[in-house]
Amino acid sequence: MPAAFKPQTAIVGIGATEFSKNSGRSELRLALEAVTAALADAAIDPLEVDGLVSFSMDPSDEVAVARNLGVQDLTYFVRTPGGGGGACGTVALASLGIATGMADVVVCYRAMNERSGHRFGQPGAAAAPPQRNPPSRDIDRSWNVPFGMVTAASMTAPVARRYMHQYGATSEDFGLVSVNARNFAATNPAAWFYEKPITLDDHQNSRMIADPLRLLDCCQESDGAVALVVTSLERAKDLPQPPVAILASAQGSGPNSFTVAQPYRENLARAVDVEVIAKQLWAQSGLKPQDMDLANCYDHFTPAVLMQLEGLGFCGLGEAAGFIRDEGIGLDGRLPVNTNGGQIGEAYIHGFNGIAEVVRQLRGTAVNQVPNARHAAVISGIHAVDSGLILGRD
Amino acid sequence: MPAAFKPQTAIVGIGATEFSKNSGRSELRLALEAVTAALADAAIDPLEVDGLVSFSMDPSDEVAVARNLGVQDLTYFVRTPGGGGGACGTVALASLGIATGMADVVVCYRAMNERSGHRFGQPGAAAAPPQRNPPSRDIDRSWNVPFGMVTAASMTAPVARRYMHQYGATSEDFGLVSVNARNFAATNPAAWFYEKPITLDDHQNSRMIADPLRLLDCCQESDGAVALVVTSLERAKDLPQPPVAILASAQGSGPNSFTVAQPYRENLARAVDVEVIAKQLWAQSGLKPQDMDLANCYDHFTPAVLMQLEGLGFCGLGEAAGFIRDEGIGLDGRLPVNTNGGQIGEAYIHGFNGIAEVVRQLRGTAVNQVPNARHAAVISGIHAVDSGLILGRD
Repeated sequence: MPAAFKPQTAIVGIGATEFSKNSGRSELRLALEAVTAALADAAIDPLEVDGLVSFSMDPSDEVAVARNLGVQDLTYFVRTPGGGGGACGTVALASLGIATGMADVVVCYRAMNERSGHRFGQPGAAAAPPQRNPPSRDIDRSWNVPFGMVTAASMTAPVARRYMHQYGATSEDFGLVSVNARNFAATNPAAWFYEKPITLDDHQNSRMIADPLRLLDCCQESDGAVALVVTSLERAKDLPQPPVAILASAQGSGPNSFTVAQPYRENLARAVDVEVIAKQLWAQSGLKPQDMDLANCYDHFTPAVLMQLEGLGFCGLGEAAGFIRDEGIGLDGRLPVNTNGGQIGEAYIHGFNGIAEVVRQLRGTAVNQVPNARHAAVISGIHAVDSGLILGRD
Repeated sequence: MPAAFKPQTAIVGIGATEFSKNSGRSELRLALEAVTAALADAAIDPLEVDGLVSFSMDPSDEVAVARNLGVQDLTYFVRTPGGGGGACGTVALASLGIATGMADVVVCYRAMNERSGHRFGQPGAAAAPPQRNPPSRDIDRSWNVPFGMVTAASMTAPVARRYMHQYGATSEDFGLVSVNARNFAATNPAAWFYEKPITLDDHQNSRMIADPLRLLDCCQESDGAVALVVTSLERAKDLPQPPVAILASAQGSGPNSFTVAQPYRENLARAVDVEVIAKQLWAQSGLKPQDMDLANCYDHFTPAVLMQLEGLGFCGLGEAAGFIRDEGIGLDGRLPVNTNGGQIGEAYIHGFNGIAEVVRQLRGTAVNQVPNARHAAVISGIHAVDSGLILGRD
């Protein structure tokens, strides 16, 4: 039934802090800076905000964000479960809230000191001994932690290895994703790796983190925040920025899902969650992969980009390496991907910065602008609970 | 704009585990038992479930619940922030998901070993020394923890004291809420305090926990789980249980909110969040407080019930004590409240068991049945991020 939902909503404001390795301030402050910037970009007064959406794991509570912004009555507050797979989901949920009249102006935010504070790339809690009354994710992880799978990289590594085995992909195929991201980042002043492109040789010579994932297959760890303002298309018409319409929004989680590791999946190399999302996105929007002028894929690790391109239907299963080589994902390619440099080149803000980049592209204000970009797909995650968007400019 | 939303959804299944002080099994298992029972009650196969909603703080992840149930594709997964204030919010969000076609069958669940595992009544993490990179709620709490406000009771105590000061309420007024709850629990075999009614003297003689809150002003700490199945009214017609329609659903958080303690509120004794919710509930449903045949209020502490009755408009500000004495909240009263015994008498499952009780009342199958019950209000919370429902039987 998802095809029935036509949200008539738009992203009308984007805001961010600088992206760094040590913000020097609290995550709450980062959140407030990004939200304030996004509302200024939208030319909407904080007094008008009546909805806030973030991740369950976001440390900045609605009441703290609202109180510090001067928001009056909140009538919609929602969190998305999971990790970065939730990024597009926040926009999906904001869109639902507006479409059903639960709120008029919803701000989605994600703020994290993910380098100077809690580093996702470290084993941390995942490797801690079992508690007496453990949450389900620790029960799940107790099956992989004893085998050394204690980080996102080590849990993704078997997926990457299986993908190589099954489809004949090579480390160089993964490397091209990284080279592309760093190329885009090199010309993006907001990117951490501004003016620092890499070659495929650099990728091949970078140290192994969790075989087959090398250092340059991994996204960054970053401090920073990004916020997005969502409201009705009707309201958007009166606002200064060209509205970026939410043409489709979806969440998806296929059968037998686990955590980042997916031991129960029949085909580890297939992004089944993305396929669940893609089916909804194309049905809701009435568009096809061929209609997309660019895409933003969740690049916590390079193989995820290949799997997402396949899951979205830009190419067949196992064909993404060929697609990247032959069709191209740079500015001169068939489908420019992660034009901000992605989470490999710009910053890792749990997928939020990728959505902001697509908004800039559709406004025509990106530093690595795709000429006449009208439609874009954004996808968050390949594990567990994921989400996606089709955004468009009329 | 909230009045515009007519969800056309219903609660069609309810399920629960036993309520205990030591379940002897994992919270995930409790969740699965409750969800399985709720689906059996609805006569819906787990294969049909495509949405799951819970609290951000619930320890049982969607992927674990779905995998163990045998759910196939999930297309909707949402969490509500906050504590018990989120209970009705889960149903509100389930309803949104169905109304917009994101999912067809959504299960809301909450499972907790809240007595044998992590006890909310204990100081715990709230009293821990500040971390280097604290979440906003720990920053907020750092203002009250040094003064000994380290539990929900000690943070609610000043609200209760202010309510007494401002409106002339007494400890006996609070006590009547507890006596009422224990009366209902005494005839409810599912209640922890089955066959154990109390007198007002018992309440007055119970030890002080956080002045003016006595032991018998406090809800229980409980182990257990409750689940609710939500689908479209259209689908509900083909199911065996009489559908309980979601006539209105709302979330609300007023200005200057904090945590459980509310130092910034101009009038501590006023449930401003509930007022934000009430405005939406009456507008959406087209009903008034006089149309309600019963109510379920969030009774973590007795004063909350008085403040919620006022916030919902069953009486004026400061008039709830008189309302309870003169109009009555027992089976023979004007408005039976917490007919399952509430969280004081039945169990503390974060407000979820109160929603299930209202469903039984509207089906006509409650142990303490209100004759011909047709409409009921359910409200969750008086602090921070709260929610409410109007449920009805045609």
